[in-house]
Amino acid sequence: MEAIERHLRDHREDHLAQLKSLLSIPSISALSEHKGDVRKAAQFLSEALTEAGFQNAEIVETAGHPVVYADWLNAPGKPTVLVYGHYDVQPVDPLHLWQSPPFEPDIRDNQIYARGASDDKGPTFMHIKALEAILQEHGELPLNIKFCIEGEEEVGSAHLADALEAHKAKFQADLVLISDTTMLAPDQPSICYGLRGLAAFQIDLRTANSDLHSGLYGGAVPNAVHALVELLDTLHAPDGTITVDGFYDGVVELSPAERDEYAKLPHDDEAYRQSLDLPALHGEPGYTTLERLWARPTLELNGIYGGFQGEGTKTVIPNEAHAKITCRLVPGQDPNAILDRIEAHITKHTPVGSTVTFTRQEGGHPYLAPYDHPAIQLAAQAYTKAYGVQAVFTRMGGSIPVVETFSQLFHIPIVLMGFGLSDENFHAPNEHFSLDNFDKGLRTLCYYYLNLPTVLGNEPN
Amino acid sequence: MEAIERHLRDHREDHLAQLKSLLSIPSISALSEHKGDVRKAAQFLSEALTEAGFQNAEIVETAGHPVVYADWLNAPGKPTVLVYGHYDVQPVDPLHLWQSPPFEPDIRDNQIYARGASDDKGPTFMHIKALEAILQEHGELPLNIKFCIEGEEEVGSAHLADALEAHKAKFQADLVLISDTTMLAPDQPSICYGLRGLAAFQIDLRTANSDLHSGLYGGAVPNAVHALVELLDTLHAPDGTITVDGFYDGVVELSPAERDEYAKLPHDDEAYRQSLDLPALHGEPGYTTLERLWARPTLELNGIYGGFQGEGTKTVIPNEAHAKITCRLVPGQDPNAILDRIEAHITKHTPVGSTVTFTRQEGGHPYLAPYDHPAIQLAAQAYTKAYGVQAVFTRMGGSIPVVETFSQLFHIPIVLMGFGLSDENFHAPNEHFSLDNFDKGLRTLCYYYLNLPTVLGNEPN
Repeated sequence: MEAIERHLRDHREDHLAQLKSLLSIPSISALSEHKGDVRKAAQFLSEALTEAGFQNAEIVETAGHPVVYADWLNAPGKPTVLVYGHYDVQPVDPLHLWQSPPFEPDIRDNQIYARGASDDKGPTFMHIKALEAILQEHGELPLNIKFCIEGEEEVGSAHLADALEAHKAKFQADLVLISDTTMLAPDQPSICYGLRGLAAFQIDLRTANSDLHSGLYGGAVPNAVHALVELLDTLHAPDGTITVDGFYDGVVELSPAERDEYAKLPHDDEAYRQSLDLPALHGEPGYTTLERLWARPTLELNGIYGGFQGEGTKTVIPNEAHAKITCRLVPGQDPNAILDRIEAHITKHTPVGSTVTFTRQEGGHPYLAPYDHPAIQLAAQAYTKAYGVQAVFTRMGGSIPVVETFSQLFHIPIVLMGFGLSDENFHAPNEHFSLDNFDKGLRTLCYYYLNLPTVLGNEPN
Repeated sequence: MEAIERHLRDHREDHLAQLKSLLSIPSISALSEHKGDVRKAAQFLSEALTEAGFQNAEIVETAGHPVVYADWLNAPGKPTVLVYGHYDVQPVDPLHLWQSPPFEPDIRDNQIYARGASDDKGPTFMHIKALEAILQEHGELPLNIKFCIEGEEEVGSAHLADALEAHKAKFQADLVLISDTTMLAPDQPSICYGLRGLAAFQIDLRTANSDLHSGLYGGAVPNAVHALVELLDTLHAPDGTITVDGFYDGVVELSPAERDEYAKLPHDDEAYRQSLDLPALHGEPGYTTLERLWARPTLELNGIYGGFQGEGTKTVIPNEAHAKITCRLVPGQDPNAILDRIEAHITKHTPVGSTVTFTRQEGGHPYLAPYDHPAIQLAAQAYTKAYGVQAVFTRMGGSIPVVETFSQLFHIPIVLMGFGLSDENFHAPNEHFSLDNFDKGLRTLCYYYLNLPTVLGNEPN
């Protein structure tokens, strides 16, 4: 590890310069006008992988944004690790709240600020550089590596499953390694063994055939914004519980052992509240904050719009109003069954005088891993080695639909080694990534890759 | 009248060409980027008045958009009429729903389509052309005329009262004549004797100090859009009644005589519903549609926005959400007192974990006229003469705050002679104005101006 640590120190400036180039590409997968930028990011990674010493770099086409593949398969008889990451990023609005432009990476206070820095270009890039360090210092890797870096994670990984299925032999491996989760705290590395799933939909509500003047029509006709507000307010009880019939059916409750473990983890509600400048926290009664985040489902209004949004006043009765909604799902919930239940609820509660269109969007299944697997236990040792702190086992409230996809398709262990922090504004203005975790994370990954063959055994899949 | 009717026929093409030029100016008073266009419309009218034979044309500055003044005061001993109108228009969004661009006037099916065609550039322009016809055919007017055409009607006439007060002698008159109301139906001229007032405000709700990732935070923190929905849904009961404490206090109830008169007016709920393509009408229980529109107050959500509005999904917990709201008020309600009550309601019902800013915007008082005044009765005769149909007396659900301003400042009768129709999409895409009413209205106005001195008497004010 000494030569490798020196290599990482010597090449740090080069690594950061290259990461900045990657972060400068506005690869926003949700916005069609950025389609070219998404491809540009894929090409950048393909070239970066080749430069790092990987072979067979390829832009694998899908019905949506492409997947970047590359491999190093010169360790016959050794296990094969598939490294998954994503090069697409979230939209950047509201743009005016960014302190530096989202696609002009800026390093301040040992943090790199840019959209995608933490989610997930930074962590994905670290795998390339960790393996490059081993290749350059040892002349070879101790195991076989395949990369699968997709461009649709932020829009539900719509076409990845099809691509994996179509090229199953190409992506076949003994283990999947993913760095797209968070650590519990800056100096508390953690191995995530559970993720929430996702169900997404949009509601488009219409009333009259045109916006109407509130003086001429006000009082006698339905108002689409008012009707949408009335409809959306039926989705939750005042205490925050979701009131959709059957929403909680089948939810796997936390075991007493898990609740005990979570209660011991470092978390302070008051500090958490203060860090967000919130007057109060708010969540489902009967659960702690960590339980709410990791093991309870949600129904969140991600966006709402209708009628006049300009300066001043406009005395209009809007004839259409829209809501964008996603649910975080936990083990025991199926995305399609949940959408069926919500659609039935919406149909039942649509106000008189309104019509509603319910549009389903891409979702993903929740996931729960067996955390006693030796490859998962080794991840904890790797963190401990690099950070000097005992790693803990946690779940995460986010969704990585592809985890469930890999699980169902390849039936192999999935190891989630996160280096991001939950306050790094992934989906908000001023996203950033800690360079401290960049440095320690590179060492963690090198240690992990070097030792993985011993715990996985030498049997190829 | 024969010479005048011939004049109107002979000059019809010129009149429409000049009206199109006026309608081509995007004088949207609510949007600061159109400030120059608003002034351009004022200048256009000032020049048009001078060309028509009026004197002392002047752009009267205010703290906001200017007022256009011009006069013809060469009938000493005769009464003076102040003609009020407005040259500002509503915003045009959603732009994609316009069949022809809002500021490229287009005549189809004997309707002129453009923003402002019906509200209020068309009707205001008719007064200039009616008086020009009399001037050119008779060589003089039978009474004195002053014009007061403002540029802030669509934003609550914020600075007109100050301008009238500052130039009280200039605007002093014996009667105010306004064409900014609607007729009951295409061939049913009507004199409006009552208007609703307006109270306007904005709610800005905030939760955390940033948008948050719904995977990392979902379930444990308040969501601004969810909180706003919850708050707004407290403003109405399920049947549409407004639930703000004291909102209906002091409301002047309709007399049994008025309810009888309204019941006789031509109105068909089913045809009205069908014309709007509505699944159902919706309004306060216990009142007919006309009663709801003319004599009952409202609280309308004119616009709502918060969180993600783009294509696809964004798994964000929004930290701010906004609503734009206006109330239509009826006699017995004071705009400031109503806003006090609503603000108290909002404060009381703000959800835990949220903070709300309540911003008051310009409003206006409701108005009720004595409709047995001879100048109002003459208006009915003028319509009957031009349309061949008996005019009826109605109220209107809209607000013209300046009516109350004139009433309080000058203590003179205000005559509301409308030529627009309620389905002409005033504040919506595809605003239009009937050229049939343009033609008949010009004759109505000429008859009215020619006969007004006989009913008003010859006493100057």
